Amino acid sequence: MDKLLILRNLSIIIIVAKFFALSARKLKAPQVVGEIIAGLLIGPSVLGWVKADNFISGIAEIGVILLMFSAGLETNIQQLKKTGLKATVIACSGVFVPLIFGTILYMCFYGFSTPPSEEFFSAIFIGTILTATSVSITVQVLKELGKISDEVGTTVLSAAIIDDVIGILVLTVVISFKDPSNKISDVILRTGGFFVAAFVLGIIIYKLLSVIDRKYPHTQRIPIIGLALALGMSYVAEKYFGIADITGAYVAGIILSSLDDSAYIDRKMDVNSYMIFGPVFFVSIGLQTDLKTLDTTILLFSICFVIVGLLSKIIGCGAAGFITGFRDRDIFRIGVGMMTRGEVALIVSKKGLEEGMIDSRYFTAVILLIVVSSILTPIILKALYSEGKNSIGSEG
Amino acid sequence: MDKLLILRNLSIIIIVAKFFALSARKLKAPQVVGEIIAGLLIGPSVLGWVKADNFISGIAEIGVILLMFSAGLETNIQQLKKTGLKATVIACSGVFVPLIFGTILYMCFYGFSTPPSEEFFSAIFIGTILTATSVSITVQVLKELGKISDEVGTTVLSAAIIDDVIGILVLTVVISFKDPSNKISDVILRTGGFFVAAFVLGIIIYKLLSVIDRKYPHTQRIPIIGLALALGMSYVAEKYFGIADITGAYVAGIILSSLDDSAYIDRKMDVNSYMIFGPVFFVSIGLQTDLKTLDTTILLFSICFVIVGLLSKIIGCGAAGFITGFRDRDIFRIGVGMMTRGEVALIVSKKGLEEGMIDSRYFTAVILLIVVSSILTPIILKALYSEGKNSIGSEG
Repeated sequence: MDKLLILRNLSIIIIVAKFFALSARKLKAPQVVGEIIAGLLIGPSVLGWVKADNFISGIAEIGVILLMFSAGLETNIQQLKKTGLKATVIACSGVFVPLIFGTILYMCFYGFSTPPSEEFFSAIFIGTILTATSVSITVQVLKELGKISDEVGTTVLSAAIIDDVIGILVLTVVISFKDPSNKISDVILRTGGFFVAAFVLGIIIYKLLSVIDRKYPHTQRIPIIGLALALGMSYVAEKYFGIADITGAYVAGIILSSLDDSAYIDRKMDVNSYMIFGPVFFVSIGLQTDLKTLDTTILLFSICFVIVGLLSKIIGCGAAGFITGFRDRDIFRIGVGMMTRGEVALIVSKKGLEEGMIDSRYFTAVILLIVVSSILTPIILKALYSEGKNSIGSEG
Repeated sequence: MDKLLILRNLSIIIIVAKFFALSARKLKAPQVVGEIIAGLLIGPSVLGWVKADNFISGIAEIGVILLMFSAGLETNIQQLKKTGLKATVIACSGVFVPLIFGTILYMCFYGFSTPPSEEFFSAIFIGTILTATSVSITVQVLKELGKISDEVGTTVLSAAIIDDVIGILVLTVVISFKDPSNKISDVILRTGGFFVAAFVLGIIIYKLLSVIDRKYPHTQRIPIIGLALALGMSYVAEKYFGIADITGAYVAGIILSSLDDSAYIDRKMDVNSYMIFGPVFFVSIGLQTDLKTLDTTILLFSICFVIVGLLSKIIGCGAAGFITGFRDRDIFRIGVGMMTRGEVALIVSKKGLEEGMIDSRYFTAVILLIVVSSILTPIILKALYSEGKNSIGSEG
């Protein structure tokens, strides 16, 4: 690997990513979208300045570990317990409806298939990509509307968190299925084994770290031990339990989320993430997408994918919302609040690419879904809330 | 490159490095020493847990770029101008005396040689390793003694900074010499060309960044642009001017050192550095050192190298101090203050290894010099100052 090439590529990636991230923000779009577009621009699709190589892939891998670790750290376990049942029902329905709809969509385009065939797993994988709501975008929108702590807001937030966990479980199960020698009982056993091991290890590490945390708050050692734990658990999860490495990082984050210094760890991870690892991760997605390979079938598929992706969440979550007692506009607020997709959809897609379950062409569809959902959600939610305010106003 | 191996190695490096860094600090030794020992322990010398690979080398390279960028950012140009002449004379003498002594030492051990031979360049390179005083260790010691802003303190600090610049110039010239087709005039022309280009570019970038800095202080974009500049200038320096990449990073730091937000940039670089890149850099030095290859000749050489390294700085800087008007204990304070070696000596050694100018066995000598000088300097300086205080006390 050429040392100078590393310096050159990183320098280009960092500056172009930041420029497009800021431009995206100016246009009220998520910064992530800007970084992906930066990757498309400097990658094989347009300019061809930077080629994805082993080093960039390695940095991107650390980037996604940091992101998932951070998502775990931000989990509020207390809040999760409180909204409990309602959120769980909405999350489950919001995972399985898009999973089934996505699978059917793929089969409509590329023919129906059954379990042992490659095509069947590709179809399931397309459904899996649709399962995860983006917590960060949902939170941001609800915060901006000042609706984050009312019943609908809390439920949506909890459901989005539970949705992440279920989505990752589904991902793990789907990836394990690919190898036909794997029995479903083995997968469940291994997944269960990992969570039991993580739970026991988690309690021990949490106790140990709590002592250090109280004795030396806000010292470098806390985030460093956290980072080593995230990397180590990612490794152990995939190597010894056959679970996706990002699951390990996410669980490491949840373990540390109750520490007094969890926000401190998260801030330090954030600095590491936004400087090098995060931009490289999102740009590398653009680098791996070659828009020149786009044909009309993929374009048509992408448009249908976006429509199915948005509607399946609204239907899945809305219906579950109705069953759990929400009425009128609240049903739509929950559905629309859950329809945003973000990093996790990309992470899942990249995982599928690595495992050879989907083609890199489908990144286009995923990117389109993220862009459309990130732009539509704030607009529709705002409309749903301001109508509500008006009607309350006229009632009052 | 195996993705899982990356996660495993990084996790081990980060946790073991931190543990040894903290242990070193408990023993009043610099943390850097602990990280190098961590590398020796997990590398081929002892446990063999981690092998240096391409990915680790790449991360280490970014680590050294970040370190040199940070050293550049901490440069106080005003202070540099004030102490001017005295510091320059001390710095020059403090570079050339160790350079000559080191070269002679190598020749005493391995035979005298003349310019076109490989051995001659190895000898010169051993001298070059001895040239650079470690700014960070010197500053830390003077701060602890509360003597950083008196005449001796300011002079030592300025001399240490100028010493770095001259040391890097010497390094560049020595590396360029190895290729016999290189004429010395070309080297000077290229080096001059780089500094002129950097100066012009520097003014432009500085003006542009000042505007952004004032308009959006403390925003992510400032350190990100800085980082991209450091990486980009490292690339351009080595690729187009044949100058060591670390020189580019250092100059990028100096360019930004007068920005209002330079301390803010430095803090963000620091978080990036201490989490992953810094530890990997120092640990990788330990990983590349195989103590099993130690024979008695190298051990004897190492001991002589340490003695020559310490004495040549005391003689070189002390004599220049006497010439520029310092008297009595101040002469020794300057000499001892300048004798600490640190990161830069390691960086130079690593450079020499990459260029095939020295053998990795000499790392042992360099590590020994850093450990001994880092422990002796604070002890001797403290003694030199407390004696002074006592005699003032008895006078007063």
